[in-house]
Amino acid sequence: MTSERLPPYNPLRFDWERGARTGVHECVFCDGKSAEQIRHILATAQARGAQLLLTRLSAEALEALGGEFELDYCALSRTAILGGLPAAGEPSEDIALVCAGTSDLPVIEEARRTLAFHGIDAPVYADVGVAGLWRLMSVAEELSRFRVLIVVAGMEGALFSAIAGLVPGLVIAVPAPVGYGVSERGSAALNSALASCAPGIVTVNIGNGFGAAAAARKVVAAYHPEISHRVD
Amino acid sequence: MTSERLPPYNPLRFDWERGARTGVHECVFCDGKSAEQIRHILATAQARGAQLLLTRLSAEALEALGGEFELDYCALSRTAILGGLPAAGEPSEDIALVCAGTSDLPVIEEARRTLAFHGIDAPVYADVGVAGLWRLMSVAEELSRFRVLIVVAGMEGALFSAIAGLVPGLVIAVPAPVGYGVSERGSAALNSALASCAPGIVTVNIGNGFGAAAAARKVVAAYHPEISHRVD
Amino acid sequence: MTSERLPPYNPLRFDWERGARTGVHECVFCDGKSAEQIRHILATAQARGAQLLLTRLSAEALEALGGEFELDYCALSRTAILGGLPAAGEPSEDIALVCAGTSDLPVIEEARRTLAFHGIDAPVYADVGVAGLWRLMSVAEELSRFRVLIVVAGMEGALFSAIAGLVPGLVIAVPAPVGYGVSERGSAALNSALASCAPGIVTVNIGNGFGAAAAARKVVAAYHPEISHRVD
Amino acid sequence: MTSERLPPYNPLRFDWERGARTGVHECVFCDGKSAEQIRHILATAQARGAQLLLTRLSAEALEALGGEFELDYCALSRTAILGGLPAAGEPSEDIALVCAGTSDLPVIEEARRTLAFHGIDAPVYADVGVAGLWRLMSVAEELSRFRVLIVVAGMEGALFSAIAGLVPGLVIAVPAPVGYGVSERGSAALNSALASCAPGIVTVNIGNGFGAAAAARKVVAAYHPEISHRVD
Amino acid sequence: MTSERLPPYNPLRFDWERGARTGVHECVFCDGKSAEQIRHILATAQARGAQLLLTRLSAEALEALGGEFELDYCALSRTAILGGLPAAGEPSEDIALVCAGTSDLPVIEEARRTLAFHGIDAPVYADVGVAGLWRLMSVAEELSRFRVLIVVAGMEGALFSAIAGLVPGLVIAVPAPVGYGVSERGSAALNSALASCAPGIVTVNIGNGFGAAAAARKVVAAYHPEISHRVD
Amino acid sequence: MTSERLPPYNPLRFDWERGARTGVHECVFCDGKSAEQIRHILATAQARGAQLLLTRLSAEALEALGGEFELDYCALSRTAILGGLPAAGEPSEDIALVCAGTSDLPVIEEARRTLAFHGIDAPVYADVGVAGLWRLMSVAEELSRFRVLIVVAGMEGALFSAIAGLVPGLVIAVPAPVGYGVSERGSAALNSALASCAPGIVTVNIGNGFGAAAAARKVVAAYHPEISHRVD
Amino acid sequence: MTSERLPPYNPLRFDWERGARTGVHECVFCDGKSAEQIRHILATAQARGAQLLLTRLSAEALEALGGEFELDYCALSRTAILGGLPAAGEPSEDIALVCAGTSDLPVIEEARRTLAFHGIDAPVYADVGVAGLWRLMSVAEELSRFRVLIVVAGMEGALFSAIAGLVPGLVIAVPAPVGYGVSERGSAALNSALASCAPGIVTVNIGNGFGAAAAARKVVAAYHPEISHRVD
Amino acid sequence: MTSERLPPYNPLRFDWERGARTGVHECVFCDGKSAEQIRHILATAQARGAQLLLTRLSAEALEALGGEFELDYCALSRTAILGGLPAAGEPSEDIALVCAGTSDLPVIEEARRTLAFHGIDAPVYADVGVAGLWRLMSVAEELSRFRVLIVVAGMEGALFSAIAGLVPGLVIAVPAPVGYGVSERGSAALNSALASCAPGIVTVNIGNGFGAAAAARKVVAAYHPEISHRVD
Repeated sequence: MTSERLPPYNPLRFDWERGARTGVHECVFCDGKSAEQIRHILATAQARGAQLLLTRLSAEALEALGGEFELDYCALSRTAILGGLPAAGEPSEDIALVCAGTSDLPVIEEARRTLAFHGIDAPVYADVGVAGLWRLMSVAEELSRFRVLIVVAGMEGALFSAIAGLVPGLVIAVPAPVGYGVSERGSAALNSALASCAPGIVTVNIGNGFGAAAAARKVVAAYHPEISHRVD
Repeated sequence: MTSERLPPYNPLRFDWERGARTGVHECVFCDGKSAEQIRHILATAQARGAQLLLTRLSAEALEALGGEFELDYCALSRTAILGGLPAAGEPSEDIALVCAGTSDLPVIEEARRTLAFHGIDAPVYADVGVAGLWRLMSVAEELSRFRVLIVVAGMEGALFSAIAGLVPGLVIAVPAPVGYGVSERGSAALNSALASCAPGIVTVNIGNGFGAAAAARKVVAAYHPEISHRVD
Repeated sequence: MTSERLPPYNPLRFDWERGARTGVHECVFCDGKSAEQIRHILATAQARGAQLLLTRLSAEALEALGGEFELDYCALSRTAILGGLPAAGEPSEDIALVCAGTSDLPVIEEARRTLAFHGIDAPVYADVGVAGLWRLMSVAEELSRFRVLIVVAGMEGALFSAIAGLVPGLVIAVPAPVGYGVSERGSAALNSALASCAPGIVTVNIGNGFGAAAAARKVVAAYHPEISHRVD
Repeated sequence: MTSERLPPYNPLRFDWERGARTGVHECVFCDGKSAEQIRHILATAQARGAQLLLTRLSAEALEALGGEFELDYCALSRTAILGGLPAAGEPSEDIALVCAGTSDLPVIEEARRTLAFHGIDAPVYADVGVAGLWRLMSVAEELSRFRVLIVVAGMEGALFSAIAGLVPGLVIAVPAPVGYGVSERGSAALNSALASCAPGIVTVNIGNGFGAAAAARKVVAAYHPEISHRVD
Repeated sequence: MTSERLPPYNPLRFDWERGARTGVHECVFCDGKSAEQIRHILATAQARGAQLLLTRLSAEALEALGGEFELDYCALSRTAILGGLPAAGEPSEDIALVCAGTSDLPVIEEARRTLAFHGIDAPVYADVGVAGLWRLMSVAEELSRFRVLIVVAGMEGALFSAIAGLVPGLVIAVPAPVGYGVSERGSAALNSALASCAPGIVTVNIGNGFGAAAAARKVVAAYHPEISHRVD
Repeated sequence: MTSERLPPYNPLRFDWERGARTGVHECVFCDGKSAEQIRHILATAQARGAQLLLTRLSAEALEALGGEFELDYCALSRTAILGGLPAAGEPSEDIALVCAGTSDLPVIEEARRTLAFHGIDAPVYADVGVAGLWRLMSVAEELSRFRVLIVVAGMEGALFSAIAGLVPGLVIAVPAPVGYGVSERGSAALNSALASCAPGIVTVNIGNGFGAAAAARKVVAAYHPEISHRVD
Repeated sequence: MTSERLPPYNPLRFDWERGARTGVHECVFCDGKSAEQIRHILATAQARGAQLLLTRLSAEALEALGGEFELDYCALSRTAILGGLPAAGEPSEDIALVCAGTSDLPVIEEARRTLAFHGIDAPVYADVGVAGLWRLMSVAEELSRFRVLIVVAGMEGALFSAIAGLVPGLVIAVPAPVGYGVSERGSAALNSALASCAPGIVTVNIGNGFGAAAAARKVVAAYHPEISHRVD
Repeated sequence: MTSERLPPYNPLRFDWERGARTGVHECVFCDGKSAEQIRHILATAQARGAQLLLTRLSAEALEALGGEFELDYCALSRTAILGGLPAAGEPSEDIALVCAGTSDLPVIEEARRTLAFHGIDAPVYADVGVAGLWRLMSVAEELSRFRVLIVVAGMEGALFSAIAGLVPGLVIAVPAPVGYGVSERGSAALNSALASCAPGIVTVNIGNGFGAAAAARKVVAAYHPEISHRVD
């Protein structure tokens, strides 16, 4: 990792207890890590027999890893799961995933797979952007049944407010890095989520489908002790 | 205006022909001008017998002017009209004014009075913010009849997209300086207008009710030669 | 509200069903509204016999209102409640309020009173900033029992990550407008909440204690049907 | 689109009625969409026999699509039209396209083709930037005849104000992503449009030739019922 | 200046040779200095018999100084000159001052008085903003005779480019803190100056009439040895 | 602190061990705290017989406190010390304070008094800004003898680089909130410190004289065990 | 340039008189222009027998042009001159080029070649950054002889102030796009130039060596009629 | 370096005395420099027999240099050392390197190798991010023994405050360019360092491991004359 003159050191202290302590496993954010670093992380986890979720793993990095590890990879969301996803359960009655348009699907999938990794299968309501409000209205009643809605939208993010004004569930806004000019890779949508006139919206960082899923899972686990036990 | 040692000069070149040339009169933006400067401008216009619209005229500046000029003043919008408003006409069938909430009314009034100054009486649809979409839905059909909609909203400005997805008229968005934190005096609403997923929205600067009215008047005058002649 | 030449219009469309529809009542954000506008809103609500929460009501605005309305006012949080708070209930076992230092208390109180207005009495853990980690550690186990933690912090907002790494509950971060230079009225704390390395943090706008409380109430109500019924 | 373990869902809800409802067809913004996603969208539209405008379609994405669809592609503006452009009509007497320099032509062409897609052939006045004001002056009288002027300019965007001070038509400013340093991909031009001292300028997002054309079409259609019927 | 326990120190090292070395005297920027600090500076200069220019001296600070010093004060530009201005000379044939509107006059006067302090009497061309281009055109030939043009404009600052495209002299742009919303106290005008499509514009900080005058004086002095000798 | 209906709580957990643990006492940042809150803090400290440093204590807040506490107050730096400063020691041979101009003295004094509170008397080198480099050169040799230099500068902050290129000591840059336009209350100076071409500069937040002093004290204490013992 | 259905138009109106009118020829900014567009511009100029300066012409664009035109190309500055540079003259006694380090040389060369294109040969003083002030001091007297100094610096841009405090000539600052983090492609250096405490600095956009040379030439031409005649 | 018509000049003035004067050698920042420029710099140093540290030297640039120079290269930190590292010494008891996670290791290595180049071998404590506070707690006592701690963290940078609240040593924060959305290549971490509630943190630019090491070395050398002599 560096020239030979300097002594080596241990670059990794895994937080294996994070799932038991906080309800969300330690996952690995791969953007900016070298293939060598990711390989070292995977090998450490595999040696322990642990499952592991990797986010922002580019196709190039995946290729550089070779076939060394058994990874369930999704190119759209750039996520990989060491050890594969748990078996399918019932569709969740607590959490729904909603997005404004096709460009938001990579973020939807990062959230969906994070939930699946933690044992929750959430349904998706796609392409309900406010430029055609009838699309949202046609699913509004259905959306009202969920306790948590992970809503993904880019550009101006008007969808966050429109939904929060219609349903009783908690809206977790995920601004998507979709747009140009003033929407600067998601910033206009982020500010719309934060400045919304509709109370009860909370938000996560731009494109952070993983974080939204982690938060949603915390809410559900707080009231479903049996789900909470799956994390360890 | 300065110490006596330096020679005086003429600080003012009025653009009296602007109305005839562009369809919008020269108006006076008072913020940052001293009472002495505003008095000089008013006296020049009064000497010519001209009507004049003043925007951003604070109550303090008005008081400093004393009772020297006959001004129709509106404290809410901080506008004054030298010579008074033209007589009422029929309510406009071309232009409507729409806003999200009570905090947007100063901007609505700046636009409404600018239109009235140019001979157009536009109706107001207030408090139709998206946090309660039914409010917007209940007037959607009515709004569909107008050719131009001046829409004022602060905070996250989701109203711009919601309306533009429902009606065929041109939406002129006016971001209102309402909000705090990331909405920084109107910036989140401005970016929502610019980044909207609903095509056909145009925007003006934050709080610029005057500019929105001027643009709306240009549209109407382009197709109503009789209105266009009122300006000069 | 404007000069007499222009016709009056109805400035207000109350969303009285919001509580039943979304679980959070319509509340009134008073910053930027004139005393006249606030008086009109209060009179409308009082005529209907409705309770109403007002946020960002300055002491000056309160004084301008005179003694016309029966308001339970808190100077620290600048909130007022028309009709008074509901009677005290049991301390909440779901929601805790946590803050870093004394300067965060106005935001804590806005959140606490919003919860109380919606029927929830949440305990406060004050002054547990990370500059002295032992303070946080001494209450960590206690905090682990709550399902939702509203955490208020200004300056660099390190408290959000520190708590989210220790407890299983959902952390709703409220960046406080405390600081100077690069923390620009709360922006550094906001970005810390959004960029946190600890998964499961969600955030609201800077200083938005009201919004955090609204979100927390939505979570609790989703699993406590009896609480949810109190809102209407 | 994702790993096989998770169930598929419908990613697309086309808003086929948008043209009839708002006067502007649903178009597809391709930047950030995968070739697979674009192919799915085109196939859906083609199956219905619909025409479709695609914007921001890179040459690489076009190539990845192969020859599967009949697309009228323009490399300069990166737009494609499924089903081809409508036949030429008379040059528009309502709308003109104006730009400051050669670098603005991609945006001009996006606007021109969007108008042509909606049945309007607008003339172009190119290279009239203010660094040589005589160029603008030589066409000023001609420009005065149009009701709407779509003006494209990058760098400092002084052209917007110069034109708006000369002609009675509505100026729709389109800041072009041309420049470096403080003009940060079009931001200085955007702010010039918003802050202009010349009343009656409205603006759209940076590089948004499509949006400017959509707005211009709305204005024209409002007064030309026969044009308005072409959209459906 | 501080509590008595800590030892005093010399807070001031005047750079009396700056005029001889660089062609511009040391001047005093008063914004943020206490009246006590300004008094100490003035007393030091007066003791040496030196003339001194003070900028950004508010009326309040002037009043706090009392009548202790003989100052030629200009309220519009908030400048004061200890020892008074030099006697009037011929109007300068090298430098002209140009501005867009009345709101720019405080900056014009700061520049004019700085030049006068250094022995140059520059003529003023006021209110030639581009919203009415004929105003600029009517003085364009006259402006072509000057070697340096200090041009002051706020809002979108289109005037800088318009002038630089018409005349051979050096344009020193001074963005004025005039505007609101995106023009944020002069920033849009600053960026227009920097991003201008017209070559040969240089700029100074927002509202820095003093700096523009200092630069203009350096240009003139470089070719007029007799003027250069007046500074010391 | 809030309405009577809600139960009281303990708003304060003092970190009395901070001095022993980190070498810097807990101090109180007063900006944004109410007089009532500050009084409660002072009373708690006084009851324990502790000394306490208060920063950003405005003259208004001081007055509101009345004469209740024995405070050594400095109006220039807005600092107060409960219990008074320790007796004078020898001038420090480790730490020097340097500033560019008179406007920087409030920050210098905040740093000087923080050091004095911790038992270190540091000498001040004032008004050595780079506009007259000879001023810096005349003290360069003297400055080379110190191990740590706290350097305060506003505007463009060129002084940081100039000093760091001349001396072997550690330069702790404190950007001062002096300037206007692009220097936005210290931001240009901050960025100059961070982006300096001269290695070995570290920086603290804008105007943070307290933080610079705390850091400098940590350096000195690390090598002077006898000083380190004074803190507790 | 677009699909065949739409009619062609003239994309180019050359401003051939710009040199005679303003003292600086029309030059072509190539960044963002297609090879086809640049070829059309060159062919138009060549047909007229005109010389032409091209800036920001990448090596790729040059290659795409093939050998069709006779261009004097400089890879470091990415400039090309159609028709070649004028013959060498005497080294200029008016203008000097100064830079902080090796990374600034591309900007220096853009300025040097722009001057040479306009008939001025300016000497270069390289690598005199303030991290080693002796380097600047050793040439300070020499630099004092020039009337205009084009100074290029990136990172924190302290060189601008240091030079302006030492010499009587006009300093035209050119912030270089050198740096990372807060210096964001030149922004810290730009702000240092604008906020400088040393009077008499003017600035141009980041990396704008061409603009600095154009401004410098205007100054020189104003006092050297014989040079001014070379431009046409 | 440019076309042949213009005369060559000396592009380099090495500051060989910098080490003796300031305690830190001149090093070469390679980002943005051409391979030709770097080769010239290396040849100049090699001719003198000097050691030289190069930072931000990409693998591509290294390859372009060929095998001409004897460089100890580290791909992770992109640093190269002409002449190799000095022999290993004892592990430093003064300086420790600490980081939050694997993504921070490139910055850690830049700092570690800069220290080694100056004769100091500092130990590394990796992967102690606050999302699992027990990791930090388990080394807290060990970290308390060091006089200077170089702490590297990206994302929200909470680690800086957590450490500074636990240990007496000086914390030099190095924000790492790790993150997305609002953490914009390190900006959120930078602001956390600057706005920290824990006194005694100083910071350097984003990713500036070199600068942090240079500062740390200055502190150590100030009290270890024998180390200070190694630099020349």
